[in-house]
Amino acid sequence: MAKTPDASRRSDRSRRAILDAALELVGEVGYNKLTIEAIAARAGVGKQTIYRWWPSKAAVLLDASLALAGDAGTEGGWEGFPDTGDLAADLKYVLRATVDEMNDGKYDAPARALTAAGATDPALGAQFNEKLLEPQLALYEERLRTARDAGQIAEDTDLRLAVELLLGPLTHRWLLRTAPLTHAFTDAIVDRVLGGIARVS
Amino acid sequence: MAKTPDASRRSDRSRRAILDAALELVGEVGYNKLTIEAIAARAGVGKQTIYRWWPSKAAVLLDASLALAGDAGTEGGWEGFPDTGDLAADLKYVLRATVDEMNDGKYDAPARALTAAGATDPALGAQFNEKLLEPQLALYEERLRTARDAGQIAEDTDLRLAVELLLGPLTHRWLLRTAPLTHAFTDAIVDRVLGGIARVS
Repeated sequence: MAKTPDASRRSDRSRRAILDAALELVGEVGYNKLTIEAIAARAGVGKQTIYRWWPSKAAVLLDASLALAGDAGTEGGWEGFPDTGDLAADLKYVLRATVDEMNDGKYDAPARALTAAGATDPALGAQFNEKLLEPQLALYEERLRTARDAGQIAEDTDLRLAVELLLGPLTHRWLLRTAPLTHAFTDAIVDRVLGGIARVS
Repeated sequence: MAKTPDASRRSDRSRRAILDAALELVGEVGYNKLTIEAIAARAGVGKQTIYRWWPSKAAVLLDASLALAGDAGTEGGWEGFPDTGDLAADLKYVLRATVDEMNDGKYDAPARALTAAGATDPALGAQFNEKLLEPQLALYEERLRTARDAGQIAEDTDLRLAVELLLGPLTHRWLLRTAPLTHAFTDAIVDRVLGGIARVS
């Protein structure tokens, strides 16, 4: 029997409640202590409802993180990476938006818990890299490729390295909490990665 | 009564056994599951011996990490940051040594477990930053200051940002395991941070 529209709406609501509960809880208790039972209780659904859709808590969190990243894109008002022709401006725009997310507990808490869990659990880390991180890095690479093709950055630029130069300092300061995450910081990263620090003689 | 030389030697041996056990165990089970009882059992000492010297497992691990960093310096054959006058060569030397440590389980496992724990436990993270990370970052800053004073890098270089540009990409690749950690990678970081990626017209 086909689902009625009402049943389908109820499913969507349950699904979203589960994903929201998973994100809240992983931020509160960390990945290791998170259980399917707790997610079900917080979402107000039965455990079996979760197991019908996902095989494990890692799978729930992966979908929850994808949904969260989608929300961030929508709230930030951009789909994909901006390309105004001005590479520095486009990179600054995206890195400022990234910093704003890192400074927002709604994004920070689950992202931090999952990054920490992935760092010490290689299988989990590989899953999150494949589904979440690599697609993001690819957007940066694509924008840098366009800039390279347009002769705006050196022909021999290793695009992956360039992405790591942009995101590495930000990730370092975010995870290790060594200093405040500001737009001035991300702007300076972009300027220095493009221009280098060596004195031009 | 003053300690006899024998008692003092026994103390040193116990102390070292405790630090070694703490490092091994945190790499094996992670920070959250580590207990003073388990460290005592692995080290072959009583729990009270540990509590006589350290108030908490965080304090044991902090001293253990400092001892490990000291060993690394000794094995690497350098005390402090090299200054040959050639900034790029000196940075490459130190970053290559850092990558070698990251690729060595003896250093990687405890450092990874503690970094992950500190990322989600602000008080623990702050303690490790103050005692372990900041003194390391200060060595890089000092070397870059000398280079700036010698006119080798731009006068307006933000030294802390420069350190983050050097170490951020390395930390990103290490923690997230996105790609192999090689000397070619760290050499390329140094070249690009010094020279930038923008095409010089």
